[in-house]
Amino acid sequence: MIILLSPDAGPSDRDAVRAAVERLGATVGEVELGSRQALLVEDAGGRLTVGALSRLPHVQRVVPLDSGTPLAAGSLTRERRPVALGPALFGGGHVSVIAGPCTIEDPEHLRVITHAVRDAGAAALRGGAFKVRTSPHAYQGGGLEALTHLRAASRDVGLPFFTELTDPRQVEQVADLVDGVQIGARHMQNFPLLLEAAKLGKPILLKRHMAADLEEFLLAAEYVLQAGHEDVILCERGIKSAERHVRYMLDIGAIPWLKQRVGLPIIVDPSHAAGHHELVPGLARAAIAAGADGLIVEVHHAPEATRCDALQALSPGAFAELMNDVRSLVALDGRRVVPAPLHALDGEGNGVARVRLAGAPGRIDGQHTAASSRRSV
Amino acid sequence: MIILLSPDAGPSDRDAVRAAVERLGATVGEVELGSRQALLVEDAGGRLTVGALSRLPHVQRVVPLDSGTPLAAGSLTRERRPVALGPALFGGGHVSVIAGPCTIEDPEHLRVITHAVRDAGAAALRGGAFKVRTSPHAYQGGGLEALTHLRAASRDVGLPFFTELTDPRQVEQVADLVDGVQIGARHMQNFPLLLEAAKLGKPILLKRHMAADLEEFLLAAEYVLQAGHEDVILCERGIKSAERHVRYMLDIGAIPWLKQRVGLPIIVDPSHAAGHHELVPGLARAAIAAGADGLIVEVHHAPEATRCDALQALSPGAFAELMNDVRSLVALDGRRVVPAPLHALDGEGNGVARVRLAGAPGRIDGQHTAASSRRSV
Amino acid sequence: MIILLSPDAGPSDRDAVRAAVERLGATVGEVELGSRQALLVEDAGGRLTVGALSRLPHVQRVVPLDSGTPLAAGSLTRERRPVALGPALFGGGHVSVIAGPCTIEDPEHLRVITHAVRDAGAAALRGGAFKVRTSPHAYQGGGLEALTHLRAASRDVGLPFFTELTDPRQVEQVADLVDGVQIGARHMQNFPLLLEAAKLGKPILLKRHMAADLEEFLLAAEYVLQAGHEDVILCERGIKSAERHVRYMLDIGAIPWLKQRVGLPIIVDPSHAAGHHELVPGLARAAIAAGADGLIVEVHHAPEATRCDALQALSPGAFAELMNDVRSLVALDGRRVVPAPLHALDGEGNGVARVRLAGAPGRIDGQHTAASSRRSV
Amino acid sequence: MIILLSPDAGPSDRDAVRAAVERLGATVGEVELGSRQALLVEDAGGRLTVGALSRLPHVQRVVPLDSGTPLAAGSLTRERRPVALGPALFGGGHVSVIAGPCTIEDPEHLRVITHAVRDAGAAALRGGAFKVRTSPHAYQGGGLEALTHLRAASRDVGLPFFTELTDPRQVEQVADLVDGVQIGARHMQNFPLLLEAAKLGKPILLKRHMAADLEEFLLAAEYVLQAGHEDVILCERGIKSAERHVRYMLDIGAIPWLKQRVGLPIIVDPSHAAGHHELVPGLARAAIAAGADGLIVEVHHAPEATRCDALQALSPGAFAELMNDVRSLVALDGRRVVPAPLHALDGEGNGVARVRLAGAPGRIDGQHTAASSRRSV
Repeated sequence: MIILLSPDAGPSDRDAVRAAVERLGATVGEVELGSRQALLVEDAGGRLTVGALSRLPHVQRVVPLDSGTPLAAGSLTRERRPVALGPALFGGGHVSVIAGPCTIEDPEHLRVITHAVRDAGAAALRGGAFKVRTSPHAYQGGGLEALTHLRAASRDVGLPFFTELTDPRQVEQVADLVDGVQIGARHMQNFPLLLEAAKLGKPILLKRHMAADLEEFLLAAEYVLQAGHEDVILCERGIKSAERHVRYMLDIGAIPWLKQRVGLPIIVDPSHAAGHHELVPGLARAAIAAGADGLIVEVHHAPEATRCDALQALSPGAFAELMNDVRSLVALDGRRVVPAPLHALDGEGNGVARVRLAGAPGRIDGQHTAASSRRSV
Repeated sequence: MIILLSPDAGPSDRDAVRAAVERLGATVGEVELGSRQALLVEDAGGRLTVGALSRLPHVQRVVPLDSGTPLAAGSLTRERRPVALGPALFGGGHVSVIAGPCTIEDPEHLRVITHAVRDAGAAALRGGAFKVRTSPHAYQGGGLEALTHLRAASRDVGLPFFTELTDPRQVEQVADLVDGVQIGARHMQNFPLLLEAAKLGKPILLKRHMAADLEEFLLAAEYVLQAGHEDVILCERGIKSAERHVRYMLDIGAIPWLKQRVGLPIIVDPSHAAGHHELVPGLARAAIAAGADGLIVEVHHAPEATRCDALQALSPGAFAELMNDVRSLVALDGRRVVPAPLHALDGEGNGVARVRLAGAPGRIDGQHTAASSRRSV
Repeated sequence: MIILLSPDAGPSDRDAVRAAVERLGATVGEVELGSRQALLVEDAGGRLTVGALSRLPHVQRVVPLDSGTPLAAGSLTRERRPVALGPALFGGGHVSVIAGPCTIEDPEHLRVITHAVRDAGAAALRGGAFKVRTSPHAYQGGGLEALTHLRAASRDVGLPFFTELTDPRQVEQVADLVDGVQIGARHMQNFPLLLEAAKLGKPILLKRHMAADLEEFLLAAEYVLQAGHEDVILCERGIKSAERHVRYMLDIGAIPWLKQRVGLPIIVDPSHAAGHHELVPGLARAAIAAGADGLIVEVHHAPEATRCDALQALSPGAFAELMNDVRSLVALDGRRVVPAPLHALDGEGNGVARVRLAGAPGRIDGQHTAASSRRSV
Repeated sequence: MIILLSPDAGPSDRDAVRAAVERLGATVGEVELGSRQALLVEDAGGRLTVGALSRLPHVQRVVPLDSGTPLAAGSLTRERRPVALGPALFGGGHVSVIAGPCTIEDPEHLRVITHAVRDAGAAALRGGAFKVRTSPHAYQGGGLEALTHLRAASRDVGLPFFTELTDPRQVEQVADLVDGVQIGARHMQNFPLLLEAAKLGKPILLKRHMAADLEEFLLAAEYVLQAGHEDVILCERGIKSAERHVRYMLDIGAIPWLKQRVGLPIIVDPSHAAGHHELVPGLARAAIAAGADGLIVEVHHAPEATRCDALQALSPGAFAELMNDVRSLVALDGRRVVPAPLHALDGEGNGVARVRLAGAPGRIDGQHTAASSRRSV
């Protein structure tokens, strides 16, 4: 760090600051900056903060010299490789779309929705069992029973799934049931939960808090990376703003900014950002055009019967149209949508992509630990 | 409006509220809502406000019955037609890109830039002569002399131009010089300026204030529409937010929201939103994919020598790449970029679009009043 | 709820909406609103949401008829009584100030600080053992050992303390050590943690998240209240904003708004809001003048040696001055500061308030369960 | 400025950056910062910006060396003296309250209100004639005729007044009618208006835009100061936020921050910040306790009959209570309220302050140019 001294600091002031910093365990050098004096501080122990040094008398400003990139270069500047959730691939030139209901309320509804999104070309499912509801009087989710329904539906259509966890004590309980763990926006800085989830070795979908800046977002990912787990998918879902025409303000600039700085895949949740189904396709197209590695979208065929986020669910028909748009946009820049549309594989394409997974119900081909999936890509 | 009375309001309270509203000149009816009482207020004079009625005792809530759409249906639900700035067309299935320097500082720089953006496929020019600079100590723009340079450059390359006005007293002064008037974000609610600019009958590019919601934005346009001038182009340029990775937060959801509600064209300024040239292309692609009718982009070949917004200017090369992306994206949904690439006209396309305007220097073909341009489309 | 039908809805549309709502289990009545049609919906099961009903065709708007107050009237409209943390009283006309270091780093520093704030008139201590640090590379707090130091310091000076918990698994572990539990802003919506903390029966200091609105804040408190625990102290600590002269924007209007609606005490954390020690006294005075029932303030005599929030800690001298201001302000409106200054008790006041607690080290007089403390007030 | 070069910049890169900066007209020196290289740039011409230098290759960061205080030290570090609007004094230990209706709608209403606020202890009047209304369909203010009514009411009660101007062309028109000019929040960066208003030589009440940071606010004041006019009163009135319990979020921390940095008086508008009369007294007390030099408050005895901001007007009774609170708070810290309560002057105080101005109707004693009022204090 450089400590810039006040314009009126004299030599004895400089010596006093220097002595104070040395007492705190750092090495100090002196620098002349034209008519101004500065100190160059080397803090091998990493104990000093900008705030602490700013409290010393005669200090005008403290300038950190490091690059400001908070993440260990080694964990993020690696070659960009996709994160795999079974056959779904995120990043490294692959785009996958996750779709499903907000909350698992009714097994029959779930069956209708999962078949519809599979037929339209989704690569993975979503669905909430453990919910974070603002009000204790609102529906709190179906818990383990709902999770069992989601797992059955997943095996039925041959698509893996993400589901949200909200309590470190849930992790062990669901270890054998889930394919991937979603950390919801409100739990982005619930570090005990992140560290417990990291132990599972399964892909983690980390949503950005609606009030987190990108550095805070990356530092939350850093907690997982530091725990030795690399399969983190970042998810932008909109930030809190004063505007009321959308539920949250989608931060579209976060996509290129993140992709220029980190190797983790970035997907977008247009449903929670928009808050209204009529705005979801526009946000989703924008996200793909800006470079997002995937989407997570809420779909429901009977939203008027749901108890959570009814306004933002796409109908199955609207979702199928959106998937067509996604395929067109991804084709423009040489990336690949997963799963590839049938006609791309065998010429039998009939306008609706169909997922071809060998897996019988109860088994997702390619479902394995994150470490092996990363090697296999 | 419906006045919902408090749960504890008795019949005499209801009568008192009713009498008070009638004294204010409105007609009042009574409504039973289950166990609750309400009043239906018809205010032919348009004098009452929700706030005023809310001040009456025993009133719990006042609910407006109109749709909430503030704009006269007649002026905005018309068939979508483009707004024309000379040959450049915005909306109605046409996409045009405006490009140029932030500020007109040096005629030779201006020449280099205007040729570059013309060759890359821009449909119109931009450039600031009358600036709104936060600090009185910063460069304040070149004024009339700069405007003369911009007009000459415009005629040299055969592209029309927008320039910002900041004072109602400028309008008459520049009436014969400008092709279209930009109202900058900070002047969006400078209604005397808007009303004076409306008198020119030339296209108005109205930028959204960084703290205006969409209703306030439309109501500013409504001032111009009410003055009898219809050629307003709305421009989203990002709102103020707490985030620092972008200069302003581009409100991408505003594009579909506005297009679902009003007939005016919507373009996007990715330069001021991003604040950094590396993020501009991502935002620009997102805007087009979300349905924007055009872009306004800052371009400079020597940004280190400029006194305004150096960080956000695209190089001519980056702008040419962006134009290629724009053409690809627009082609996906059946819209047309203006001007059409050469190869689309005569098969001679060589990867770089070239604008074909007959206009000799000093003349922009198709430059005419807004009213006639609207009829001719 | 009232469903307002679209202006163009005909009788058959009305019947269709009515039938759909009845299929969802509600009772429906019809209402004429002048030329408009509406339906009155009674949903005894509490299953319907505004969003779900809004998805039905021909519905223009859904207006809830309840007051909008989310909290059970019974738990919040009770007579205002203070919440007691040992001898410290919050609310019901009592004002108490909590003070101490951000983080417990050094037992000797802790001793200096706790004596200073006790002598200046603090009613309780604060100090972090389990920290929520944005970066995994920053100091993570001293854990149980630090908590032991804080407890010892508390008994030494005879002041009770709050400390933050961050993981539901910590609650049982510290049950016998803590006097009161702080739920930090980032964990305001960590409902598993709130429910676990509620079981302790000790006062809960619930900080508002920097992106939570007041309804979300009250609904978080409602989780605790619904669990049968009433001793919740609300703490406003500033919301995220775009401004950089303060760390967070203190929402001073939240104080009167909350006091007009709920019976829970409201205190203010000026330290995290200001982010800079020079702004803390101004915010603190404003909070008391606006009606806050107390403060929680960070104090350190050697901030340059700390690893957390060095910029915002008040010196012991500045804290003593602030306490004088607090006493003056509270005296204006007939409330009482706890502990009362000595001179108010026996005429021996010498300008510095001194806390008079009988308790020997290791014991806080009046330290008992919340339920009994509430009865005793 | 210091240019910090990238970690990988070699000697030839350093020389290239140095040469480029010298070509832009600056003097460049070299600095060693441990293992890093930096350049010290002296730009006598003031032409270079941080953004422009950041565009050079191999530049990691540009750090300005000046203090960051944008205002000329000479204009703002002067001894703190009050700004005078006739007998009303703002700053320098004096606190004055401005009060009146939002808009001048009815002369008889105006008479009732101005007498009430005079009797309660207001030092000056407010009232809008030229309004900035978001919608062209809303009431646009009474213009010159309304201004004439306000002037008459002012002379009747013997209190000077501020009124808002919105167009540089109005300034000459009203030069002889107004006592002080208010620049509304939406026109804070309407620099042509500010420069025209500065020519009047009358006190300017400059309201902070709801999206302006404090540096932008001070730079707007700087436009007036640079024009040679020193009588600027800064007015904090709340910033735009996502919260809905208040209309704008009062930035209470701005008061101590500004008072620690500039010599201009700072007052607060609690009415527009709160947006609801029940929250106004709390915000007003907080502002005075935080050090504000005055208030500007909306008062109306019949808000249900008004066409503008009905919800936020205080009743005359509530305003009188607020004035009592203001006097109590100001007395705590040794400042003086203007006008002094009668009983403080001659012992005849009867609980209601009464303004003692010799001026007959039509004349405000002490009404003189700013320059003379500044000398006389």
